[in-house]
Order: sequence, then C-alpha cells, then structure tokens
Amino acid sequence: MATKKDYLKEVVKHIDIKEHNVVKLVDDMGEMAFSARDLNRAAKIYEMMLKDDNCAVILTLAGSLFSAGLKKVVYDMVMNNMVDAIVSTGAIMVDQDFFEALGFKHYKGTKWVDDNELRDLHIDRIYDTFIDEDELRICDDTTAKIFDSMEPKAYSSREFMWEFGKYLEENGGPKCDDSVVYACYKKNVPVFIPAFSDCSAGFGLVIHQHNNPDKHVAVDSGKDFYELTKIKLHSKETGIFMIGGGVPKNFTQDIVVAADILMEEADMHKYAIQITVADERDGALSGSTLKEASSWGKVSTTYEQMVYSEATIAMPLIVGYAYHKGVWKNRKAREFHKIYQKENVTV
Amino acid sequence: MATKKDYLKEVVKHIDIKEHNVVKLVDDMGEMAFSARDLNRAAKIYEMMLKDDNCAVILTLAGSLFSAGLKKVVYDMVMNNMVDAIVSTGAIMVDQDFFEALGFKHYKGTKWVDDNELRDLHIDRIYDTFIDEDELRICDDTTAKIFDSMEPKAYSSREFMWEFGKYLEENGGPKCDDSVVYACYKKNVPVFIPAFSDCSAGFGLVIHQHNNPDKHVAVDSGKDFYELTKIKLHSKETGIFMIGGGVPKNFTQDIVVAADILMEEADMHKYAIQITVADERDGALSGSTLKEASSWGKVSTTYEQMVYSEATIAMPLIVGYAYHKGVWKNRKAREFHKIYQKENVTV
Amino acid sequence: MATKKDYLKEVVKHIDIKEHNVVKLVDDMGEMAFSARDLNRAAKIYEMMLKDDNCAVILTLAGSLFSAGLKKVVYDMVMNNMVDAIVSTGAIMVDQDFFEALGFKHYKGTKWVDDNELRDLHIDRIYDTFIDEDELRICDDTTAKIFDSMEPKAYSSREFMWEFGKYLEENGGPKCDDSVVYACYKKNVPVFIPAFSDCSAGFGLVIHQHNNPDKHVAVDSGKDFYELTKIKLHSKETGIFMIGGGVPKNFTQDIVVAADILMEEADMHKYAIQITVADERDGALSGSTLKEASSWGKVSTTYEQMVYSEATIAMPLIVGYAYHKGVWKNRKAREFHKIYQKENVTV
Amino acid sequence: MATKKDYLKEVVKHIDIKEHNVVKLVDDMGEMAFSARDLNRAAKIYEMMLKDDNCAVILTLAGSLFSAGLKKVVYDMVMNNMVDAIVSTGAIMVDQDFFEALGFKHYKGTKWVDDNELRDLHIDRIYDTFIDEDELRICDDTTAKIFDSMEPKAYSSREFMWEFGKYLEENGGPKCDDSVVYACYKKNVPVFIPAFSDCSAGFGLVIHQHNNPDKHVAVDSGKDFYELTKIKLHSKETGIFMIGGGVPKNFTQDIVVAADILMEEADMHKYAIQITVADERDGALSGSTLKEASSWGKVSTTYEQMVYSEATIAMPLIVGYAYHKGVWKNRKAREFHKIYQKENVTV
Ligand SMILES: NC(=O)c1ccc[n+]([C@@H]2O[C@H](COP(=O)([O-])OP(=O)(O)OC[C@H]3O[C@@H](n4cnc5c(N)ncnc54)[C@H](O)[C@@H]3O)[C@@H](O)[C@H]2O)c1
Ligand SMILES: NC(=O)c1ccc[n+]([C@@H]2O[C@H](COP(=O)([O-])OP(=O)(O)OC[C@H]3O[C@@H](n4cnc5c(N)ncnc54)[C@H](O)[C@@H]3O)[C@@H](O)[C@H]2O)c1
Repeated sequence: MATKKDYLKEVVKHIDIKEHNVVKLVDDMGEMAFSARDLNRAAKIYEMMLKDDNCAVILTLAGSLFSAGLKKVVYDMVMNNMVDAIVSTGAIMVDQDFFEALGFKHYKGTKWVDDNELRDLHIDRIYDTFIDEDELRICDDTTAKIFDSMEPKAYSSREFMWEFGKYLEENGGPKCDDSVVYACYKKNVPVFIPAFSDCSAGFGLVIHQHNNPDKHVAVDSGKDFYELTKIKLHSKETGIFMIGGGVPKNFTQDIVVAADILMEEADMHKYAIQITVADERDGALSGSTLKEASSWGKVSTTYEQMVYSEATIAMPLIVGYAYHKGVWKNRKAREFHKIYQKENVTV
Repeated sequence: MATKKDYLKEVVKHIDIKEHNVVKLVDDMGEMAFSARDLNRAAKIYEMMLKDDNCAVILTLAGSLFSAGLKKVVYDMVMNNMVDAIVSTGAIMVDQDFFEALGFKHYKGTKWVDDNELRDLHIDRIYDTFIDEDELRICDDTTAKIFDSMEPKAYSSREFMWEFGKYLEENGGPKCDDSVVYACYKKNVPVFIPAFSDCSAGFGLVIHQHNNPDKHVAVDSGKDFYELTKIKLHSKETGIFMIGGGVPKNFTQDIVVAADILMEEADMHKYAIQITVADERDGALSGSTLKEASSWGKVSTTYEQMVYSEATIAMPLIVGYAYHKGVWKNRKAREFHKIYQKENVTV
Repeated sequence: MATKKDYLKEVVKHIDIKEHNVVKLVDDMGEMAFSARDLNRAAKIYEMMLKDDNCAVILTLAGSLFSAGLKKVVYDMVMNNMVDAIVSTGAIMVDQDFFEALGFKHYKGTKWVDDNELRDLHIDRIYDTFIDEDELRICDDTTAKIFDSMEPKAYSSREFMWEFGKYLEENGGPKCDDSVVYACYKKNVPVFIPAFSDCSAGFGLVIHQHNNPDKHVAVDSGKDFYELTKIKLHSKETGIFMIGGGVPKNFTQDIVVAADILMEEADMHKYAIQITVADERDGALSGSTLKEASSWGKVSTTYEQMVYSEATIAMPLIVGYAYHKGVWKNRKAREFHKIYQKENVTV
Repeated sequence: MATKKDYLKEVVKHIDIKEHNVVKLVDDMGEMAFSARDLNRAAKIYEMMLKDDNCAVILTLAGSLFSAGLKKVVYDMVMNNMVDAIVSTGAIMVDQDFFEALGFKHYKGTKWVDDNELRDLHIDRIYDTFIDEDELRICDDTTAKIFDSMEPKAYSSREFMWEFGKYLEENGGPKCDDSVVYACYKKNVPVFIPAFSDCSAGFGLVIHQHNNPDKHVAVDSGKDFYELTKIKLHSKETGIFMIGGGVPKNFTQDIVVAADILMEEADMHKYAIQITVADERDGALSGSTLKEASSWGKVSTTYEQMVYSEATIAMPLIVGYAYHKGVWKNRKAREFHKIYQKENVTV
C-alpha cells in the first residue's frame, strides 16, 4: 500500500508576478473579445484604482487561492502598497497562509484518486492538491495556543489576525518568505475574516472554549463589520478587487450601506472588479453582477468589470499588469491598522 | 418616470410541497440518467435520513432561496420534524425570512432593467426579484432594537435567532403564516448563521455598536461552532441536506472534525446530499465533491449525492418526495435547542 | 474480472409525461423566481405556440437526450401533433433512437468507473450511462445496409431519415413502442440532421462509400438547409423549442435569414424557448441569448425564454404542462413531409 | 438615433503569439494548481505532439473564435507546420475567416445594448462583438458565386474549402495578411467542416440551389468523414488539439472508430487536449471528459488534458508556449491535401 510520502512529493510553488512582464500581452488582449478583453479592462481599472490618490483599495479573497499558488501575488501586493485592506475567508489566511508560515507546504495532487485511501493516510484533498492532515492539526493547535494567551474578551477578526502576525514575529518569524499574514502585520494592512470560525482557527476556538468554559476569547463578527466600515469612512474613494465571491464579496460591498446608515456621507465603491466563474443564473451573491450591486447602491457602474476565469490564470495577469506598469511606485501605504489603535475601539 | 409602485406589483409566492404529490414523478426520474437520476437518488437518501432513528438531520442554506419562493418548503420541514437544525446565511434568515415576518414581501422582477433607475427608486434587485429598500431598512432597524434590548455580552448566532423568534412572539406574532425563524423558535430547532454580521443583522449590529460604544452585544462565531459540534456529539448519526454551498456547507461538514478534536468519538456524516450549480473545477468549497470531503474525514461516501440543478426546481421535488412518502410521520422532534439550555453554555 | 453482464444490468426507462399531471406544479413555479419562474414562462410560451393556429412548431435536439430517458417525451409530442418538424443531432436519432428501435437498450451506469476496463469489455460510456459497443456496431452496419439499398445520388438527411423509418416498417416494425424515427415516418413529420455523418450513420456511410468507391449515396447538407427553409416559407408563423444548443439551434434559427435571402417575405421566429446549461460568456452559439439572436433578425424578443436547467429535469415538466393543458387536442397535423413529395425536390 | 458608424468603430485585432514569449510564465503555472497547472500540462502535451515525428496534429475549432481575435494564432500554426489538418465549424472558417479575407472586419461591441436597435441598423451581435450584416450578405453571395462556378456534383467540405482558397488566389489574394483559409490552401493543409451548410456558405448553397434547381453542387458530409479517416490511416500516431467541443470534437474523435471499422489497424489518438468551459454534468459531447472518450476506444488516457478556460485567454498561452519552445522548427509539413489528389477520391 502507498504511504503518505508517495503522495506528498511535489510542492506547490507560488507564482512570482515580478518575474513576468505581461503588460504587452494584456494590452493586446484588450483588442480581442470575450474574457480576454474583459481581463484587459479589469487590469486597467485596477491600475486606475492605484493611480487615484483618493482611492483606498480593498481586496476580497474566496476559494482555495493560496494552496493553489497565488499567495506570493497577494504578498507582493501588500509589500508594494497595491492593497490597503484584505477581506478573506479563514481557509486562505489561516489553513493556507499561516499554515505555510509555520513551515508546512501544499502538494501537487490529482482528483483521480481514491479518497478513502487518502483518509486512511491522513491526507486531505482540495481538488488537485494534497495536504498533510497531521500538519493541519498542528496549525489548529497553534491557533488554540494563541487564543489561550489572549485576554478573554471579544475581538474582531482583524485583531486576531494581528495576533497571528505577532505570534510569528515572536516565534522566529514565518518559515516562508511570502507570508501574507506576516506582511500585513508588518505593513499595518488590516485583514478581516467575516466568518472567522469557519476554518482552522474555528477548531482552535473550539479547543480553547472547551478548555476554558468560563472565560475565553470570542470572535465578534459585528465588530468586524463596524471596523471595515470605518475604512470606508476614512477614504474619499474606494475600489474593490474581488477574487471569487462568497461572504468577503458581500461583506465588502455592504460597507457602503453601513456607512450610509451611520448617517455619514458615503459614496458607492467607485471601482469594482471581480474574477469569478460563478454564474448569475442561480441568483446567489457570488455570481451577481456588479450592475445588480448598483441597484443596492453599493457599486458605481462606471468602472466595473467581471472576468469569467478561474483565478489561477487571470489573477497573475491582472496584478502582473498593474505591477509592471509601476503605478504603485508613488503610492503611499495607508496603514489602516493604525486607525483602530488611535480610536481605541473596544468591546 | 416610473414609480416604485410600477415595479413592486406582483408578489413572489412560496411553493407548497404539500399540494404536489411528486412521488411517482421522482420515482420515474430514477429510471432516467443525468440530473434526473441524481435528483431521485438524493430524494431517496433524504428519505433514508428521516427513516433512520439514530440520525439527526441538518439543513444548510445558501443563495437567495427564500426571496425565490422556497421559504414554505423549509417551514414545512420544520413543522413536520423533517429537520433538526439549520445552518444558514444571514440573508436567508434575516433579510428574507424575518423581513417577511415583519409583513414585507418580495416582488417578481426582471434582470432586463436599468439598475441606476432602481437605485433612484430605492428598489434592490436580486437577479429577477425586487425588494423595497425602505422596508429593508426597517428590518435593519428592528434587529438593532432587538440588540439594544439584550444584555451586553457575547452570544452565538443561535441565541440571537432565538431572540428574533421571541421578538416576533412578543410583538403579535409573525405577519405571515410560514416564518421559518418563528417556526424554529416554537419547535426548538436551533438556527445557526456562521457569518451572522453579513446581512441585515450586520447593519443592526453596526447601529447598535455605534450607539453603545462601551457596552454592547457581540456575535461570538466561535461559540457557534462549538454549539453546532454539540449536535454531532448528541447524535449517533447525522445526515446533511445542503442547498447551495458557501460557509454553511463547510461549517457543517467541519463539525465532524471538531468533534474528533474534542477527543470524543465522532463518526463522519453518514448521509450527505447537495443541490448546487457550482462547478468543482475552480477548487472552491461550494462545488467540491462530497467524495473530496471524505478525504477530510467529514462525509462518508456510501450515501452521498450531488444534484446539479438550480434549487427552485430541485428542492421542491426532493422535499416533496420525502414529505409525500410520509416517513416523517413517526419521527420525533429532537428539539436540540434544549441541549443548550440544560448545559447552560455561556461566555 | 468483471464481465459485460455485470455492467449492463439496469435498463434506462423513458419517462412518460402522460402519467404525470404537472400543471399545478408548473403553475406554482411561475410564482417563484429564478429557474422555476423561467421554466413556467417557457411552458406557457410552448402552450401559446400550440394554440396559435398559424404557428408551426420546430423542435431542436442536442446532447445525449434519448439515452437519458427523454425519448418517449418526444414520441408523445409527435403522436399528439405537438411538433411539426425536428432538427436533431445524429447521435440522438441514429445512435439512440434507431438503435433502440433495433431492439437494443441503454443501461444505467456511473462515472465512477475505470474507462480502460470498459474499453476492454466493449462498453461505451456517456457520463452515467452504459452502451454495448457491439450492439452499436450492428446499428452502424444496419445504416450501411440501408445506404447500399438506395439509388446512388445525393439526399437530404430528411430523406435518409424517411428511409430509416421505411426500413423499420419493412422489417417487422420497431422493436420498442416509442421510436421517434418511426413515429415521424408514420406521421409525416420531417426529421433533419444537419451534421448527419457525425454519428453511427457516419460509420455506415464510410463503410458504404468504402465498398462502393465509384457510385454511392451522398448526404447533401445544403439540401437540408433548403428544405428546412421551405417549412418557414410554408408557415405564417413559427415557434422553436430548443433542447440544448449546438448545430440544431443555429441551423433552425438561420432559416429566417435564408427565407429572407430567397426574397420571400419571412417573419422572425415568433416564439422561441430553450433549455440549456450553457453559459453565454464564452460567446458560443449554444449559450447565446435569444435576444442576441434578435440582433440577427432571427428571433422575435416578445415571446422568448431560456431555462437554465439540465434537460432531463426541465423537459418533462415543460412538455408535460402543455400536454395536460390539452391544447394539442384541436391541433392539426401539418405533415410537412408531404410538401417535399409534392414539390419533388431532387438533386 | 445612432447610426451604423457609431457602433462599428473599433476593430477587433488578432493576437500575435510570436510577440509574446510566454514560456517561463506557462512553466511557472505548472507549479501551481487548478486551471493554471492544467494549462501547463496541455501546453506540454501539445509540445510532445509536435516533437513526435510519427504524430499528425489535428486541430478542432468550435465557438466564435476568429471574430474574437484568435485567427492569427491559427494562421501562425499553419504557417509554421504546427498543425496538419483542421476540423472546424462553418462560422469560423466562412463567416469569420473568409469574411475577413474579403476585406471585412469584426468590431468591438458590448452586450449592454438594445438588440432591436441593432437589428434595425443591420448590425449582428456575437456577445460583445459587432458585425456589419450587409457585409455578411456579400460574403453569403460570394460563396454562392463560387458554387455557381463549380461543376455540379457532390463535394466534401474539404474540396469546397480548397475552392474558397483558390477563389482568393484568383481574385487578388486575401485582403488581410492572416487568412487561415488561404494559408491552408497554400500549405496544403486540409480543412473540414462537418456541418458545412450551418454558416454563411449554407446561405450561398440555398441561393445556388434555388437558382439551379436541376443541377447544382452538393455537400457530401459522408465523404468528409471518409476523407478525414484517411488522415488517421496515413499517420502512425495522431494528436488532437480541441478548442471548444461540438461537432468538430466528436467528428475527429470518431475517425479512430471509422479506421477500425475499415478493418485497418488504427491506434487511438495518442495525445488529446481540449480547452473548454463546458461542464460534463449535462452528458453532452462538448464537456465529456477525454477519459470517457477512452471507453469508446477513441482517445488514449496517458497524454490527455482538459483546460477549463475560455479560449481567448488559454489558447494564446498554450500555442505561444509551443511556438517559443521552437519544436516546430524541425517539423515537416505533412501536406495531407495531396493524399486526396493522388487517390483521386470522387463521388
Ligand atoms: N444573496 C443575497 O441576496 C444576499 C444579500 C445580502 C447578504 N448576502 C450574504 O452574502 C453571503 C453569501 O451569499 P450567498 O449564499 O447568496 O452566495 P454564494 O454565492 O456564496 O452561494 C454559495 C453557493 O451556493 C450555490 N447556490 C446558491 N444559490 C443556489 C441556487 N439557487 N441553486 C443552486 N445552487 C445555489 C452556488 O453554487 C454558490 O456558489 C452570505 O453571508 C449572505 O448572508 C447575500
Ligand atoms: N452525445 C453523444 O454521446 C454523441 C455520440 C455520438 C456522436 N455525437 C455527436 O456529437 C455532436 C455534438 O453532440 P452533442 O449534441 O452531444 O453536444 P454539444 O455539446 O454540442 O451540445 C450542445 C449544447 O447543448 C446543451 N445541452 C446538451 N445537453 C444538455 C442537457 N442534457 N441539458 C441542458 N443542456 C444541454 C449544452 O449547452 C451544449 O453546450 C453531434 O453531431 C452528435 O451527433 C454525440
């Protein structure tokens, strides 16, 4: 019978946009039709966001992006001031980014496999990618350890993610050179995870709460929403760059309405692009058009573009385009993390 | 120019599975191929769940299901002991169910419309459905009022949803006869919303926290996960019936692993069916096969079936089949809400 | 090792719309949203086509529909004057319908199988359906025999399909009671297959031409187009009912333009409905909207409806609705086959 | 009101793979997961086909590829001996390639438009692309003129396409520098169109047959199949590169079976790659996996890869990769057109 080693051999490597100047390629795609032309327009709108001095850029992430090799793309965005806040699923930030920061890897696999055999070997599968389940349990436990070390009260997911960065800092730094959690910690880029317990950190929370029935930390997802809305209030304009849909897409679109409700003047997101394969016909949020969002007063329709493509192909092209156009060079880091320190928002 | 009235004319009506005996139709679909045969198998697996005395049934809901006319299907499931716990998006339970319980409606619309005009008229669009935005704001405000009335501490979403039911009870009852929030309250069926702030209740929370900066309620999503896991621990077997994917799908699959981590004996979900149009090829959770889930030790592969169909067509057929086969008649209400009262789980 | 018998056990059975009165179900779907409401509208438009005395109804078929259990639905449409002409892929009419008329069957299978083992056992797979390859070769050979028996010249596919019906008639009748090829032959409903050689009949043609290098029959696909256009010219109004897309969809939409080119007065197709899962975003014909077709002057936009659903679920509901509403009862058979006999169109 | 000029302004330009060295980019995609890794593997299999001295490469084309800017990609494949035969839809070769060879263009458009206004202006729309309908009618008429000039008998589509090339040659050459029809004519690369009348040439045939009721040319699609099979018989190995699915995919896969039936030794296609967004779950041919094809004995499973992507993005990357690796440099032109001249295959 096969062993774990037989399956976990080839490591997934993260693509490095800095090494691929795709500007001319993406420019030429703009002269074509269908997805190529849409991709070009999205890349140009992203470039516009970065050029617009008044515009804060929020990145939303859903799907298994980092296990698929897109981690360094986001890392480079953070390090080069190409993004000011991130709203993500827990899987991407904890199970995948923090996991790799602990020194673990994702492995190239295949979907043509017997999943029952994988289960027996403690290997987890994400489509064509394999993960060592025992390593994932170490990740769960590490999050529990972090929770144990914190003062027992309610936190936003942003505060938790900042603790995760600090944990890395205090434990010898990340064991990989492209951790997004760590980069955001260093660059004061806030990271929000609206469904925080729906990931490895959720297991950590269950362990933590089980062991500390009376006094334990809590994730306050309402505080998340309030804090994210503050970014809207602190920015003259906002642009959103959405990879996939799900909760991060809706959560981020909604802060316009929240800002509005707080009776403060709030414009719609001025720029909005999305990479997705979701179809609008099921009526769900992931595939809902950005025009539909404009009926809700969330997104302006002037600069919006959806790109119908799986993200591993489209995202390096779009971000690579903006990177090699160099517009980020004069862009200032907004360091939104600091607004929460100043205001000292607490429960 | 058109007025709001011109758009909000025809009300969406919820389909009543009790009126359509689809047993023979669904049986005959089982002799065909493709989605028809898959749908038949899913219906039979749901029937098996209900017949299995040891099996607790968890329903997960994602997408815009209740605005699309599927509310009464779930209501009938709750009232007839065909489901023991619900894990949902906030939009379905708050923006759509609680909203209608407040007396508001969803309207038949079209996607061939100028969304900018809709925005000016305060009409929100979900694909082919229209909503009165001013009514939605009343819903937001009502949730804020509920939050204001509660003792300021951290709650699970289940506790919040129970308060929503109580609010209806104490304010003259729901203004529609098929409120799922209210039915669950009366029948002690727990409702979980893992991304609770990502909906109308999120706006309520922002208002509430804004007005009560020092002392306010908090949503503890870690507690959600812990509480849902308890259902696994209290049940010999579990079956999950998933409509759409998203956070509710993953959250519910994960409780097997959480139960395992708590060192208690936990079997995989014995039965699992899903209605979805998501494609597995983007590697995201919504379209990930139930076989893939078995590599994670979450779902047993013996009784699993995915049905590739938009839910408004497939769900009434599957639930209608089980309803008219009558297996629910001898099924006992599990009233899982009571396990939390007994144990008195608090922050 | 497994034998062929182990795989070919359970026969696919064709659904009988006459046994399922779905009128109320489909009516209630019309009060919902998304695909359910679209399906309802399509069913009503189909009913309108049948009620409109001036309207000829053309059915287009693509995908593996008859191997999936939809043969009797089309058979009942033909026998009850619910369709006046059929445009199909070769696979459906020859590999699947004529094949079953020769006494062979399709078997319930699964996609979770080793295709190399199937190949060794001479079993062909269509997604979840199995076919005995040796029986399919008999079907190929039978078509070659029919070609050998015909006068060597060029024919339209309609003429070939009429010969296929005659072959069944002269050889003891079809060995199943719901052959569409045979029903069309008896009811003078013309059947067109624009890509005639792309199926079992193609293998027959290769054999026939190989054995008769100098004088053999030829398929004239230009004649097909000319003949189909005549139906447009003989009809005041036309409605098209499309299952899937592909060549049959485009071919049938195009006859409006062809009629126009022949300088005769030709209206657009007045009614058009399509069941498909194809997405419009790849720009291909199968998923192209009927509104797009109206830019080409092919389809009027007043009564058009696309339904996003796999056909095994949606088609029985739509056709069943029209059947049980009974509008076909006063409808006359158009017997379009006769127009070609009168005009004696030859090469 | 807008005029035609207002809509037909920006011309679609064909991407030039020679200008984009994507080798490193595609190599790095191979270290990722999901579609990026699949795309890499497809590119490598295409490279293997070209390296394999025994292997003839057949390209199949479906969808609106050339109107979308992919014409020059195919042109460069033909000119650099990267393909030995083409099987296509009529739309691509006639309405789009021959159309541009006559001096006409495709224009960048949008789907957010009133299709009824387009119809009034004689503008045809393909998703986000506009076409001058009056120019298309000239294309139709030109094909009719070619048919009028030919000896009235039955031809394969390959013979017709050769006549189209000759027409261009004799009328001053193509009015663009990247006509695939013309390049194939010069390079003796046969072009097959199994559903030949389902395009602009179909309108030409209707005109031609209408004006010449007694003696006219006919398209023999059986001869097509026979001729294409000869390529299999003339090649030790074959590889197929499929863009989209439809009739071209099935037709080309089937020649293995046809060769087999002719009792000659025929191996399965040794290499097979496909770019498609079609889903396998509808059971139709376009999305059917290449593993499924292996149950039919058509495709070997060792070197097969499907890529889930819209073609305008994936095709330039895959072909560009093989181009810049330079393997075509030592590859000989097979000039399959000549085998039909030698054998003098006639009706
Ligand atoms: N949908 C809304 O109108 C809306 C409104 C406010 C807030 N939200 C919030 O957005 C978040 C995500 O929302 P979501 O659940 O709508 O989106 P989603 O796109 O995350 O849905 C998850 C998946 O479920 C499947 N699915 C959804 N609807 C389906 C259907 N009708 N038939 C078959 N499959 C279906 C799809 O595969 C989809 O990928 C939630 O937190 C929700 O509360 C949504
Ligand atoms: N399908 C087969 O098993 C088979 C076998 C032999 C030959 N062929 C030949 O292959 C060619 C193309 O075949 P095709 O028609 O199978 O493929 P196709 O993929 O071209 O089908 C066309 C479109 O119809 C839609 N569609 C198909 N089936 C559907 C369903 N069940 N529900 C909803 N939408 C559906 C899809 O959108 C698809 O894109 C034809 O010439 C046919 O004769 C097919």
